[in-house]
Amino acid sequence: MSGIRYGGDYNPEQWPEEVWAEDVALMRRAGVTTVTVGVFSWARLEPRPGERDFGWLDRVLDLLHAGGIEVFLATPTASPPPWLGHRFPETLPVDFDGHRLAYGSRNQFCPSSPVYREHALALVADLARRYADHPALALWHVGNELGQVCHCDVTAAHFRQWLRARHGTLEELNDAWHTAFWSQRYGAWDEVIPPRRAPYLINPGQRLDFARFCSDALVESFRAERDVLRRFTPDVPVTTNFMGLQRTVDGWALAGEEDVVSHDWYPDPDDPESHVLSALGFDLMRSLKRGPWLLMEQAASAVNWRRRNPPKPAGQLRAQSVQAVARGADAVCFFQWRASRGGAEKFHSGMVPHAGPDSRVFREVEALGADLAALAPVAGAPVVAEVAVVLDWENWWAVELDAHPSGDLDLLDRVRDCYRPLFELGVTPDFVPASADLSAYRLVVVPNLYLVRDPEPLRSFVAGGGTLVVGFFSGVVDERDQVFPGGYPGPLRELLGLRVEEVVPLRPDEAPVCSSEALGEFTAGFWREDLVVEGAEVVAALDDGTPVVLRHRHGAGAAWYMATRPAADAAVRLFGRLLADAGATPVPRPPRGVEVVRRGEVLFLVNHGAGEVSLDVPGAHVDLLTGGAVSGSVTLGRFGVAALVPQSG
Amino acid sequence: MSGIRYGGDYNPEQWPEEVWAEDVALMRRAGVTTVTVGVFSWARLEPRPGERDFGWLDRVLDLLHAGGIEVFLATPTASPPPWLGHRFPETLPVDFDGHRLAYGSRNQFCPSSPVYREHALALVADLARRYADHPALALWHVGNELGQVCHCDVTAAHFRQWLRARHGTLEELNDAWHTAFWSQRYGAWDEVIPPRRAPYLINPGQRLDFARFCSDALVESFRAERDVLRRFTPDVPVTTNFMGLQRTVDGWALAGEEDVVSHDWYPDPDDPESHVLSALGFDLMRSLKRGPWLLMEQAASAVNWRRRNPPKPAGQLRAQSVQAVARGADAVCFFQWRASRGGAEKFHSGMVPHAGPDSRVFREVEALGADLAALAPVAGAPVVAEVAVVLDWENWWAVELDAHPSGDLDLLDRVRDCYRPLFELGVTPDFVPASADLSAYRLVVVPNLYLVRDPEPLRSFVAGGGTLVVGFFSGVVDERDQVFPGGYPGPLRELLGLRVEEVVPLRPDEAPVCSSEALGEFTAGFWREDLVVEGAEVVAALDDGTPVVLRHRHGAGAAWYMATRPAADAAVRLFGRLLADAGATPVPRPPRGVEVVRRGEVLFLVNHGAGEVSLDVPGAHVDLLTGGAVSGSVTLGRFGVAALVPQSG
Amino acid sequence: MSGIRYGGDYNPEQWPEEVWAEDVALMRRAGVTTVTVGVFSWARLEPRPGERDFGWLDRVLDLLHAGGIEVFLATPTASPPPWLGHRFPETLPVDFDGHRLAYGSRNQFCPSSPVYREHALALVADLARRYADHPALALWHVGNELGQVCHCDVTAAHFRQWLRARHGTLEELNDAWHTAFWSQRYGAWDEVIPPRRAPYLINPGQRLDFARFCSDALVESFRAERDVLRRFTPDVPVTTNFMGLQRTVDGWALAGEEDVVSHDWYPDPDDPESHVLSALGFDLMRSLKRGPWLLMEQAASAVNWRRRNPPKPAGQLRAQSVQAVARGADAVCFFQWRASRGGAEKFHSGMVPHAGPDSRVFREVEALGADLAALAPVAGAPVVAEVAVVLDWENWWAVELDAHPSGDLDLLDRVRDCYRPLFELGVTPDFVPASADLSAYRLVVVPNLYLVRDPEPLRSFVAGGGTLVVGFFSGVVDERDQVFPGGYPGPLRELLGLRVEEVVPLRPDEAPVCSSEALGEFTAGFWREDLVVEGAEVVAALDDGTPVVLRHRHGAGAAWYMATRPAADAAVRLFGRLLADAGATPVPRPPRGVEVVRRGEVLFLVNHGAGEVSLDVPGAHVDLLTGGAVSGSVTLGRFGVAALVPQSG
Repeated sequence: MSGIRYGGDYNPEQWPEEVWAEDVALMRRAGVTTVTVGVFSWARLEPRPGERDFGWLDRVLDLLHAGGIEVFLATPTASPPPWLGHRFPETLPVDFDGHRLAYGSRNQFCPSSPVYREHALALVADLARRYADHPALALWHVGNELGQVCHCDVTAAHFRQWLRARHGTLEELNDAWHTAFWSQRYGAWDEVIPPRRAPYLINPGQRLDFARFCSDALVESFRAERDVLRRFTPDVPVTTNFMGLQRTVDGWALAGEEDVVSHDWYPDPDDPESHVLSALGFDLMRSLKRGPWLLMEQAASAVNWRRRNPPKPAGQLRAQSVQAVARGADAVCFFQWRASRGGAEKFHSGMVPHAGPDSRVFREVEALGADLAALAPVAGAPVVAEVAVVLDWENWWAVELDAHPSGDLDLLDRVRDCYRPLFELGVTPDFVPASADLSAYRLVVVPNLYLVRDPEPLRSFVAGGGTLVVGFFSGVVDERDQVFPGGYPGPLRELLGLRVEEVVPLRPDEAPVCSSEALGEFTAGFWREDLVVEGAEVVAALDDGTPVVLRHRHGAGAAWYMATRPAADAAVRLFGRLLADAGATPVPRPPRGVEVVRRGEVLFLVNHGAGEVSLDVPGAHVDLLTGGAVSGSVTLGRFGVAALVPQSG
Repeated sequence: MSGIRYGGDYNPEQWPEEVWAEDVALMRRAGVTTVTVGVFSWARLEPRPGERDFGWLDRVLDLLHAGGIEVFLATPTASPPPWLGHRFPETLPVDFDGHRLAYGSRNQFCPSSPVYREHALALVADLARRYADHPALALWHVGNELGQVCHCDVTAAHFRQWLRARHGTLEELNDAWHTAFWSQRYGAWDEVIPPRRAPYLINPGQRLDFARFCSDALVESFRAERDVLRRFTPDVPVTTNFMGLQRTVDGWALAGEEDVVSHDWYPDPDDPESHVLSALGFDLMRSLKRGPWLLMEQAASAVNWRRRNPPKPAGQLRAQSVQAVARGADAVCFFQWRASRGGAEKFHSGMVPHAGPDSRVFREVEALGADLAALAPVAGAPVVAEVAVVLDWENWWAVELDAHPSGDLDLLDRVRDCYRPLFELGVTPDFVPASADLSAYRLVVVPNLYLVRDPEPLRSFVAGGGTLVVGFFSGVVDERDQVFPGGYPGPLRELLGLRVEEVVPLRPDEAPVCSSEALGEFTAGFWREDLVVEGAEVVAALDDGTPVVLRHRHGAGAAWYMATRPAADAAVRLFGRLLADAGATPVPRPPRGVEVVRRGEVLFLVNHGAGEVSLDVPGAHVDLLTGGAVSGSVTLGRFGVAALVPQSG
Repeated sequence: MSGIRYGGDYNPEQWPEEVWAEDVALMRRAGVTTVTVGVFSWARLEPRPGERDFGWLDRVLDLLHAGGIEVFLATPTASPPPWLGHRFPETLPVDFDGHRLAYGSRNQFCPSSPVYREHALALVADLARRYADHPALALWHVGNELGQVCHCDVTAAHFRQWLRARHGTLEELNDAWHTAFWSQRYGAWDEVIPPRRAPYLINPGQRLDFARFCSDALVESFRAERDVLRRFTPDVPVTTNFMGLQRTVDGWALAGEEDVVSHDWYPDPDDPESHVLSALGFDLMRSLKRGPWLLMEQAASAVNWRRRNPPKPAGQLRAQSVQAVARGADAVCFFQWRASRGGAEKFHSGMVPHAGPDSRVFREVEALGADLAALAPVAGAPVVAEVAVVLDWENWWAVELDAHPSGDLDLLDRVRDCYRPLFELGVTPDFVPASADLSAYRLVVVPNLYLVRDPEPLRSFVAGGGTLVVGFFSGVVDERDQVFPGGYPGPLRELLGLRVEEVVPLRPDEAPVCSSEALGEFTAGFWREDLVVEGAEVVAALDDGTPVVLRHRHGAGAAWYMATRPAADAAVRLFGRLLADAGATPVPRPPRGVEVVRRGEVLFLVNHGAGEVSLDVPGAHVDLLTGGAVSGSVTLGRFGVAALVPQSG
């Protein structure tokens, strides 16, 4: 297959077989190329332990193939059938409070359960064996939105095994967890348990290691299924769909085991800024394996799980879909093809809504099929970035532990505070892990790095001429969540040319004024720090002289520090300065609400704002979506999009 | 007994016997006719398993009878003694999270427990045997405010038995619950359990059936006790007291098993609109068995279970009591006769307050006794209605399930939004179930009917010339909570002359303007829908043309649809139009805050507002309460009441 | 040792031994006299059941002693090691919901567990045996912030034993708990359990007795350890550190078992009124044993357990420390000496912060050492009060039970409402229990006494010429939480010259205007009552005549009643009147935000406000802190302090 794949989750077991033919006909009408089948089919495929019922699936795959539609075939392991929980209650997850959760929903399994794994892998093997050579099979889709966490005794044993591998000896574990405090020293391995409801604050080392373990256990689950699949189909790529920007699984680790990254994404139609968070998420997905990715799920209109679930306004679906392609998606898929009649997600919209094909939603779905076909030339093309943003899962887990200076420090907020000004300046960054080689970039942004495992990549990047900016409350702890001797920013002190005596989370109503020759006067918020300057130059300071933005030359480059959160407009000015300081290629600033991204040779324009806007586009272009010529400027209405290819000649 | 009964719960076991004589003397002084005895007496009657201690109760009943006071004798089954829970922990209820609840409060039983039932029925039988012929016995009062729900394994077995009876086969159950989604297919009956805490959303079919089961199990409990009582006293009527407007038990089903309906009602003294909700509840109680009902519990002044519990202002008790009589009550009773000295409800006011009889409260209680005696002529008289409001418990359970377009859609709010304009227009409606024969009414109001079992009663009502109005988000699912094929409003589509493509829950700050020739300009809120008109006429629409109120001629009648919630004043105008359209008998609109209800030949006026009002009352009347003549007009101060009988001649 | 002790919790087991020497050197630099060692050392001292490892502690104590620093040696019983919970799960506490809490935090023990106690006392004995004669040992510090509550079955058995001792027979218990209501009568002792999650409100008698039991069980735990310690070191005083103003343990009872009172106190740097609550707490601590007390823990700067944890502003630590000394503290100590590198409290500040000794915090710590040395003359001196405030734990527990007229009636709020005007008038009161002999005082303030065990002390105080003021909702119940016959204020009715018919909790937006010749016009809030005057004179009344402040001559004195909460300024006027009525010695009213307290012959002035203030100080003084002469007036900047001794001659 070439071009941009288009389709959605297809759950034919919800419908009588007579509907299936109509489905395929409608899919063809809409330009659907690909559907995901079998995500929740375990109970149908294995109605009783050990039984197999593949006949219906054979017919579905044959029918789809006959209709020219390829299949992403799912392993149905995200939702075990009731019989598994009923016969083997130890496979059911236990929450932090000690409640064993019931079946009747989905995801009710303990990722550490050998009983669960054994049943899951046996079915996966039979599935792979049966469909290995089916001509419709294009990709394996393992499980669904991996993220289960369990606190049971089986998990405890698994956790101890993981801890032995990480720490070697109990003495090392006691040191790492700082169990000398509060009399928590473990005298024997079998005393060690997951975090569970306790009288007061729980050991943060234990919580951080449990977060690592939970992520590793899920990656291990994925790997186990992938390895079974590879035995049967070494050439069919394997993915599992990420659930948005989720904290539970280390994205770098999981992507490292996948052949291609896929992503489920549900922006809130009520959030006028949702396109910024979408862009952030899409850039992250593209970065996880440095290449094209699959938008595996989005909604055609409303979802069902927010408190209030309005539909998407007309045109938004198209704008959001093109946005994904612009930022590297080679597939635009939906949950789900046909809206369910029953069950917990019946009010989650489908490509075919309850109202049927004679509806605004289906008409938009059809039009989108045509649009994506027109975008075929962009498939596989790269997005090239000069700026990188560091996102590190261990730091995410650590910085959001409790009993910190502020319970409101949310890592994603910090990332967003740095991403938004880049977006507004028309700059598309990559994301990188904290351990990445950064030499390909001009500017590296570290929104926060509370936990520092190794400062060397940052140091050598700056020494080699790069520009680095680091956000507040960084360099605080090592990988054991233990404060660096000598205080913050620990191993970044020399690089940043400063040290921090005390951190000051501000009240929501505190907005101190900062003055700065370089940035103009602005207000700060959320945070400030009592700093001692050790070589850095003060770029901005509070009225009382407390520095809030600093810059330190180091080697051939410069390291900036933001000890506060500047107001939104000042953040744009600051990032403008950073880009200039880094020598980044200048790009024109797009009008507010308009997204400008270059993928391959195509320049994508998307208007997420409410009103009509005009943009200068020097030179002659053709709009892939309309086939029309564009010369000098483009006018876009609400949710208007353009995909411009330079006209040769 | 004739006239309006007057009294309250009498719990003499809380007091030394020397107080009992004073009680009877004070009751006589207050005009008390009736007391409810024994509601919480299980532990006193059966201090140890199988023992019986009836002596004290013999003395109480004899004393009351000697004082001319009749007795509503309660079965004490709402509150088992500690020994039951201690010896038989399986009788204790288990909550959704799996916590087994303790004794030390009340209501701690599993309605499905055979052990509980066996002990309860044995005591009920002995009670009935002993007092069958006691001359004070006027009525049996079974349990108290039935509403217990349990999620234990005994309940699970009972639930499965109920499900087998409902669905026949497991395949039917799988279909009904749409278990094809999320791999929830049951392979054996013993896998099926009540809804319990699970990782994510729980199957709505399971939840809806569990709601039905819980209601049925409580009705079954009631029936079991009633049948025992009838064996001994076939002629003594049996009731159980409803707890306000409560969702848990299907009112129509429970009332169907009772001989007379009774009701506990505690309006909030802080809510200036509480009389509207009271009127709604009273009309519902009258409708449940289409006749007089008993106000079994109200408070003489403050209650104890709200966050803040102010006393009732002077005069309010009288106004509220007369309101109940006006809307069909043949008894006005209280919880409880004498405020407790100890225990969890000691700050719940009593007819005899902590301050004793020399108090405002007791003086109002005395005066109320005289008022009710004066209202004797109204006892047994009917309230005749031309308007019916549909209230259906299955729909109530279904429409409030989670994962819906809006988590704020509360059925009672929707009913209140329709009831309030009727109240303000001086119209007293009946309530009816969705399956009722509606031919006796001119206007039928369906605030919401998300779940439609059978549209036929509505269809034939309109076809026969009736006027129907249906609120938004109706006609969505069948009785299995499965969306009707072809979309909303499903089986009401032809009747209403429209179909709905998408529903749009609005933000709290959205108040779109609607224009309408018939109703004037108004603002809408909470909801709107994307509609396709299929024959209906548009009565009101948003600025962009989206219809929000429609009217469709059908047969000899008309069916209206409200796709939004009009602002309060517009709702009054709309219901005025509906009444006119229906050809309802015109009644004058009372001043704001004043309630006007006709019961039998008596016209009741109650001023719930803060200021003095005057009303025109054409013709000559006598006020039953004062005995005075009224001619032309009546002036009522705050909480003023009048009960006017036309003067013959 | 003489003078004011200075130091903090020292947890050397968190640090390598090479840090210990640096610690002692820094302590000496800062003027530290005393450290608390071993609070959380159980797992280090007994790494496996029955083992002992005292070597490290020997070295620590020797090192400290060599450095001239004395030791408060802690029993490490607040935080059992993981092995105790792992091997003996029955020692882990169970919460109200039935969850057994895990280790991994601290405080995870059931105070009633014999297994816990046996292990704890064995270690305490070995500790006492080993260090009985160590020259550094100055005081025993038992456990930490006693407050654990458990609902397990072991607790249930202990509770029953306590109940038998209190009530004698089951019949007495049934009477006391008023179990006649709601069928809660117990037929056998083994049916009785602690309050646990139940379907509805729990018996208040059971809850009140459980509160008493929990307090007694903790006092019993303390006593058990104390008795072991006394066996080995009859002359070393024993304390345990109170956790702020905490409800769980009866302060009078626990203090009665201690040799000296100690206190942990963490004012919120964000609360501009925190100094008033601090003063209240400090006066209470001084009162508990009528003498000097130890400030055992405070923070050098930020804490870690609030949602937002800003550091203390420069100078505040000094002001707060001097405030404690002014109100009777003979020690100023911290949690903890050196901020932890790891663990749950690493962001709780230390005397040596993460930033190390070259920091503002450590410089303030050093300066404070010098200040406290200068205040040595005040050590041991008394604070003399003419005013007493009644604080009674049983009343605290009872008045905050649920299902009351207002769920917002918080006893500490009531106490604060009375304390604040005294503070603003420059008056320093004592606290007393409700049973105290009051003859030494001129004015006795009873903010609330819902539960009255014995009115005699109040009666005889007034009869003997004293002035009493009692707050609303007093005299309601007896010690069984049963309402006094005849209504409120029960046994205080004659003394106060009034009775209460109904209590009226006001809405937050209700602020009725009161007029009063004596106090001027003012607004009231929170509460009012419908009163019948029986001899009292009305000092202030609402517009409708309802009395809100009354005064009743009784014997040689006067008893006032406050039926509402006057606005803050009116409360100051009212307390001014009360002081005048009582003939209290007049003191000048200090400027707002300034605290004036006399301890011994020293007059302490502390400016907690934001701006500079000047105070008249008639006569000639020397400021102990500066050694300088003060004559006529003193000027204090923000957080400025003075400790003035009259200059003789």
